[in-house]
Amino acid sequence: MLNIDKLRCADRRTLARGITLLESTREDHRQQAEALIQSVMPYSGNSIRIGLTGVPGVGKSTLIETLGNHVISRGHKIAVLAVDPSSTLSGGSILGDKTRMPTLATNENAFIRPTPAGETSGGVARRTREAIVLCEAAGFDVIIVETVGVGQSETLVSEMTDMFIVMLLPGGGDQLQGIKRGIVELADLVIVNKADSELQSKATLAAADIQQALGLIKPRYPDWQVPVITSSALENKNIAEIWTSINDFRTLLSSDGRIASRRRQQAKTGLWMETQNLLLSALKNNQEVGESLSRLQESVTNGEIPPTIAARQLVSKFLDGK
Amino acid sequence: MLNIDKLRCADRRTLARGITLLESTREDHRQQAEALIQSVMPYSGNSIRIGLTGVPGVGKSTLIETLGNHVISRGHKIAVLAVDPSSTLSGGSILGDKTRMPTLATNENAFIRPTPAGETSGGVARRTREAIVLCEAAGFDVIIVETVGVGQSETLVSEMTDMFIVMLLPGGGDQLQGIKRGIVELADLVIVNKADSELQSKATLAAADIQQALGLIKPRYPDWQVPVITSSALENKNIAEIWTSINDFRTLLSSDGRIASRRRQQAKTGLWMETQNLLLSALKNNQEVGESLSRLQESVTNGEIPPTIAARQLVSKFLDGK
Repeated sequence: MLNIDKLRCADRRTLARGITLLESTREDHRQQAEALIQSVMPYSGNSIRIGLTGVPGVGKSTLIETLGNHVISRGHKIAVLAVDPSSTLSGGSILGDKTRMPTLATNENAFIRPTPAGETSGGVARRTREAIVLCEAAGFDVIIVETVGVGQSETLVSEMTDMFIVMLLPGGGDQLQGIKRGIVELADLVIVNKADSELQSKATLAAADIQQALGLIKPRYPDWQVPVITSSALENKNIAEIWTSINDFRTLLSSDGRIASRRRQQAKTGLWMETQNLLLSALKNNQEVGESLSRLQESVTNGEIPPTIAARQLVSKFLDGK
Repeated sequence: MLNIDKLRCADRRTLARGITLLESTREDHRQQAEALIQSVMPYSGNSIRIGLTGVPGVGKSTLIETLGNHVISRGHKIAVLAVDPSSTLSGGSILGDKTRMPTLATNENAFIRPTPAGETSGGVARRTREAIVLCEAAGFDVIIVETVGVGQSETLVSEMTDMFIVMLLPGGGDQLQGIKRGIVELADLVIVNKADSELQSKATLAAADIQQALGLIKPRYPDWQVPVITSSALENKNIAEIWTSINDFRTLLSSDGRIASRRRQQAKTGLWMETQNLLLSALKNNQEVGESLSRLQESVTNGEIPPTIAARQLVSKFLDGK
């Protein structure tokens, strides 16, 4: 069993071992993991949970490195987790790579955890929700959940964080992608990155576009106007402003318990998401079902059987087979 | 058993009885319904399936009435179905109300079906998917699935139609709501309604706003630029243009089988949505689970138990209880 006291003292090796336990799919490990989570639950919750998304190349790692050192200099402990459903496909995570955050990786007040490969989106969500609890119990009070925004990953991440930050590139049509995937809609803060010397003007234009787009969107919180900050992690530009903006957001929404209620709502949503995932994978792993599964799915896509009937057949086969 | 021959001859009473059968939750009715759907499946698919959304008061019924008479005059048969998950709350449907489409309701080439009250969103989806099949088998070749856009209803409807139409009001910030709820993103055609005499200029401005917003969005189909049409169902303005635009869309996407593949994808998505709904409701209706359900959910929202663990408890209680 993991040494909870060491964990509570922000011992990074203990925390890492704890998360490895969460990631294990072995049944006995899963039971230990749940016992662990349950036991540290009372020590969790004392952090600002920040979701961060942006296409590959937008500069997430560099920003996290710079912002991370900034918040550590303010006396905080920062944990960086990665949600990357694409790792199932790519067979490995492109996120949370320690080599891309060298100074942060060696700082004892920072904890960086790459995504394990070969996870289902449901597995990613479960692992990350539990990893957040562990990191908080270990005393990390700034948690960044980073995602590259494949499929539903932004929604997943915004469903488990207090504040959602969208990073975009100056020009290059990224702000459009942002809207296309509906993520600007999720944003509590937008960062137009790489506003480096020669790109500064492009970045300012992009920021104006976003601000305009945001103006068309009914705000999630009427008293929080989503800031659009141009920054350059390389030139350390506006990093302090970003951290100030995060704190303003937190202060505003903590004062009247809106973060607390957002978390309660997330926990409820999480419960049903987890339940659906577990049920569906149980069905898919059921042997009798498995045999008819691909055949049924093909008949459905060929329009021979309506989805509604096929679903009933699958479910009754599954539940009777139990 | 329903008279399939009469159904195939567009007999509206038979069709109505068939849909009533689909809506029944009685187990024996469900089995008859599935036999019915299965038997008419080969005659289905020969229609343009149109999703239509807009806030209450935008003028959906008036437009459907006017557009419906127009397409009937072109030799088509039109069926109007309503998806209204809010009917569970409101206890009754505000949609597909025949009294709001008087001339269409009395036309034998039109079939209008209000939503039954007291359905779950999952139930609505199931019923509508099956109702579409019945209407097509009955020879209705233009199907309009109307929704008021509560919760996930637009996504539901776009998941079961070939073309998604978003209706907005001139000004009044409706185009903003459209973006907020991400539905403009789903739109294949946008109609700014009530462009009546004095509102004409406002409507033109609104249309320009939408066109601009759409310009920021990566199009679903690169070769289909989403049209924004200002119309007045009252003054019968641009109704022919709307129908032309629907046909252009259909021609473009039928030619290379994109509608067919969209339907195959929808059938697959539908299969898993239905399966999840059935599994979740089976779990919720399970007696042993039911007893611990509310208690567990409260502990989760109070942060005493992590969602992941609570979900595991629910699912294993459910599956072992089977």
